[in-house]
Amino acid sequence: MTQSEFKLDEAVAILERTPATLKAMLDGLPDIWTRAAEGEGTWSPYDVIGHLIHGERTDWIPRAQHILAADPRPFVPFNRTAQFTESRSQTLCQLLETFARLRTENVATLRGMNLIDSDFDRRGLHPELGEVTLRQLLATWVVHDLDHVGQIARTMAKA
Amino acid sequence: MTQSEFKLDEAVAILERTPATLKAMLDGLPDIWTRAAEGEGTWSPYDVIGHLIHGERTDWIPRAQHILAADPRPFVPFNRTAQFTESRSQTLCQLLETFARLRTENVATLRGMNLIDSDFDRRGLHPELGEVTLRQLLATWVVHDLDHVGQIARTMAKA
Repeated sequence: MTQSEFKLDEAVAILERTPATLKAMLDGLPDIWTRAAEGEGTWSPYDVIGHLIHGERTDWIPRAQHILAADPRPFVPFNRTAQFTESRSQTLCQLLETFARLRTENVATLRGMNLIDSDFDRRGLHPELGEVTLRQLLATWVVHDLDHVGQIARTMAKA
Repeated sequence: MTQSEFKLDEAVAILERTPATLKAMLDGLPDIWTRAAEGEGTWSPYDVIGHLIHGERTDWIPRAQHILAADPRPFVPFNRTAQFTESRSQTLCQLLETFARLRTENVATLRGMNLIDSDFDRRGLHPELGEVTLRQLLATWVVHDLDHVGQIARTMAKA
């Protein structure tokens, strides 16, 4: 998705579908599919859902709010392995429900921001990438969803 | 999926989920997502659903029946571009419904075969690959689903 083509409704169309996609794909599947990773240091579908939950809590919407607040400090760094400590006691079904609930809340928050065109050019400071626009942040959220759906399918195809 | 690990219930667990996964992912999405391909000669999500429908009609179950009938002739070659002529007049929603109906019927047919362990070693003649076992055919069906789910996610991530 190039920046100039970014449209909020098109982004939300993907974001709001991802929980149902993952539920249809994974809920009730035998562990042999959902707990398999691609190799040492890679993530199983179960791990990916935990990662997506952590993103809903700490990444996308908090960073959008950070940009809109014109906070000059860098974003809080994202913990890419939080799912290995945060959600280990939960079933996959529980994680899928948590993700769906958080995503619904976050899409409502996003819509409630009532963004106007010029807002998408507002910038924040990414701790690794430097300046990013709100448009880039939101486009990355969408691509991140699709990348992880693809990753899950690929991981299971190899299982 | 290695041959020795193939279990029918685990295969069916994926096969029966794919229509709902694709419906959750694609139904109602703007065309900008569903009609985009990765480049010249590649397939859009819309094209992929047409391809999956053609597979339900002419590939997996007909070939399994061919093997179980001990037919010594090669399988009828699969037409990889049938979706470009067969389903062009239909909406994506119609294609998703057709795929779901055919898949439900085919999973019921598969279960109705009441396969026993030795059946999975029975062989047929693939027109390009030579001898293939029923186990290989069914494992390929599952991986084919997952590959196309991953392809759709990847195509949309690039759109």
